[in-house]
Parts: sequence; C-alpha cells; structure tokens
Amino acid sequence: MKPTITAFERSPDRGRGLARDMRVRWALEEVGQPYNVRLLSFSEMREPAHRALHPFGQIPTYEEGDFALFESGAIVFHIAERHAGLLPGDANARARAITWMFAALTTMEPPIVDREIARLLEGRETWYEQRLLLVEGRIRNRLGELSGHLGDADWLDGEFSAGDLLMVTVLRRLNGSGILDEYPNLSAFVARGEARPAYKRAFDAQLAVFKTMSAS
Amino acid sequence: MKPTITAFERSPDRGRGLARDMRVRWALEEVGQPYNVRLLSFSEMREPAHRALHPFGQIPTYEEGDFALFESGAIVFHIAERHAGLLPGDANARARAITWMFAALTTMEPPIVDREIARLLEGRETWYEQRLLLVEGRIRNRLGELSGHLGDADWLDGEFSAGDLLMVTVLRRLNGSGILDEYPNLSAFVARGEARPAYKRAFDAQLAVFKTMSAS
Repeated sequence: MKPTITAFERSPDRGRGLARDMRVRWALEEVGQPYNVRLLSFSEMREPAHRALHPFGQIPTYEEGDFALFESGAIVFHIAERHAGLLPGDANARARAITWMFAALTTMEPPIVDREIARLLEGRETWYEQRLLLVEGRIRNRLGELSGHLGDADWLDGEFSAGDLLMVTVLRRLNGSGILDEYPNLSAFVARGEARPAYKRAFDAQLAVFKTMSAS
Repeated sequence: MKPTITAFERSPDRGRGLARDMRVRWALEEVGQPYNVRLLSFSEMREPAHRALHPFGQIPTYEEGDFALFESGAIVFHIAERHAGLLPGDANARARAITWMFAALTTMEPPIVDREIARLLEGRETWYEQRLLLVEGRIRNRLGELSGHLGDADWLDGEFSAGDLLMVTVLRRLNGSGILDEYPNLSAFVARGEARPAYKRAFDAQLAVFKTMSAS
C-alpha cells in the first residue's frame, strides 16, 4: 500500500528542506517506496481531524490505511524496519545505527532548535544577543564532540544508515549560521548526505510544493 | 550475558531518580534482566576511555562484552526488542509504542530540559524570570496536548510500553515545579508508573548508590 504523509502547505522554511517531512521523504526515496503527500494549512493542523492523527498538531504524519504514525524519528524507523537500505543486517550494527537515530534527535537537535526558538521568540528581547551566545556555546560543544567521533569517516558508524540520514537533516538546520563551517568534517558529512540521489529527489519534491503553493 | 550500565557516582539529582540511568534500570527491571552498574565521576566521564563508549561523555552507556550502546532511548529500545514486556507483539501497536518513545524524548523532553538549563545557567541573569515564563508556556502547551490525548486512559496507547516508561521519566523531571499538578490525568499517569514494582526496584537501586556514595 502506498503510504500518505503530511507536509506544510506553505513551509515556513520557504522550500529549504528544513521541515521534518524532508526526513521522511528522504527515507522513502532511499528505500524506493512511492508515497502520497497531503498538504496542510496551519489552521488545518490545529483541527481535531489532524489532532486525532498527531496529538501535538505537527507534521509529518504517516498513514497506511487505518494505521497511522507521527514523530519523524518513529516514521523513519518504521520505514527502515520494513525495507532494506537504512539499517544494517547485523544485529549489533543495527542497534548502533538506532543509537545514532536517537543521538541525532535527542542530543544534537534540541540545542539547534533552541537557537531557532530564541531567534523567533526572543529576537526583540534585550537579552537576545547574550542568550544567543549561551545557546551557540551549547551547540558548539555538541558539534565538537560529534566532529571528534566522526573523524575522517564517511558516516557515523560504518555504512550509511537512518542514523546518518537524521543527523544530516539536524545539522542542516544550522545552514546560514556559519557555525557548521567551523567543523569541516561535519560540513563534508552533510554535503555527502545532500549528494545522495535519494536526498535530491526528496529535496526537489518538497521544493516543488513550495514553488507551486507560493505561485498560487 | 549480564549487561553493564554506567551511572553517576554522585548524581546531581541527589537520588531523586531523574538521571537517565533510571530509565535503563527501570526497563531492565520490567523485563527481569539483572545488570551490573559501573559508577563514573564527572572527571572519568570526560576521559578518552569513556568517550570511546559515549561520544558525548554522558551516562548511561550499556555494554555486553564488546558490544556497546549509548543514548537512553536507544538502550531502552534495545532492551525492549530483546525481551518481552515493553513492546506489543502486534506490528502496528509496536510501531505506535515506538512513536511514543520518540514523542517522549523529542517532543516532550526538550522544553522540560530547557527549563532546567535556564535554572542552571541563567538563574542569575536579569532576564531569568521573564524567560522562565516563555519556557514554561512551551511546556504547558505540550502538557495540555498530551493530557488531551491521554484522557482517562491508563497508558498512552493500550498496554504499558516502553513509550509510557520514557514518558513517565520525562514528566517526573517537572517534580517540584508544581506544573504537572495542573494536569491531574498526567499526575495520575506518572503515579501509575511510579507504583509499578519494577519502577520501585530501579528507584531504590539508584537511591542506594546516592546514599552510599554521599556517606563515604
């Protein structure tokens, strides 16, 4: 069955592929699974029909008939479990790849999202510049540790996995900040992810939505 | 093989079971798997030997011989995959329980941890009170949505699962703030988790470490 995912009708990232549907699109493209997309306006996201699918009123969701999931990490894991290509076959290597999925979303992403929240909600506060330094310090600590782990390897643990996929999407959120440029091996890691044909197909698909919707 | 986990030699939570080894202890107790604990000082956590196990220099880690994992979410998932009791047998229900694992750690926990970081790093800043209101507003938004989803059910999706286990440990971080009391069904959910025999065994084990180490 062809699954249906949800995405922003008008993504606040203006088609830069930073919304969380990008992860799911990319995972589906990596495993060669075609999918449908249902676009949601911000008001539709708050309605009971969508809350029944996603208690926190976000995108993406994932539906196969009556079966529905939310949380981009869980959706990517579901895709990775049911198709070859995103998790190693060896049990120990598979557990380590899953570890990197959690590391991407629970250790690396929170301070990076915190910087975005600060820019959005505190950008006009008197304390903004000072607090931004604190937040960016926390981001740099994590990036330094991640950079130390990656070294000159291509991917975080052996072959490309769903852990790399999620980590690339998390690090891309720093695009434009200049912070990632301080860690050349992490910049190269992100570029390797972006160079994958499946990434490009996913990126183009979400960009096409933005272009079409903003022209309408 | 009896696994070995790591925990704080002197937990900053003073034995209140808020450190992330608690989740792993609880999961191991739920499935009846005995384990060893290796205690680490803050300086040992920064050493290369520990960084080789955990690139971000945190606790807990999980070792079975040469096989090692980090990230509490990934460790709980590893335990849940290999033993009965923490994930449903039905494939769709299992995927939904995993969704709640990710929701606990990536949607609910970040604003709650952000409040702790603010108290720790910004408590003496002029902006502290004003920013605390912002952070607590974000927490309340999420709690309201979670409370709406839970309703009068015992657990987040059918039977108790690793998703409930992680969510209880995340919500417990609000203990003492008074915020959770505003959502009686969520307070009752946490109390149900804390009443489980496996939770109590795990809690007592981590408290015993704190008492022993602080008496030495």
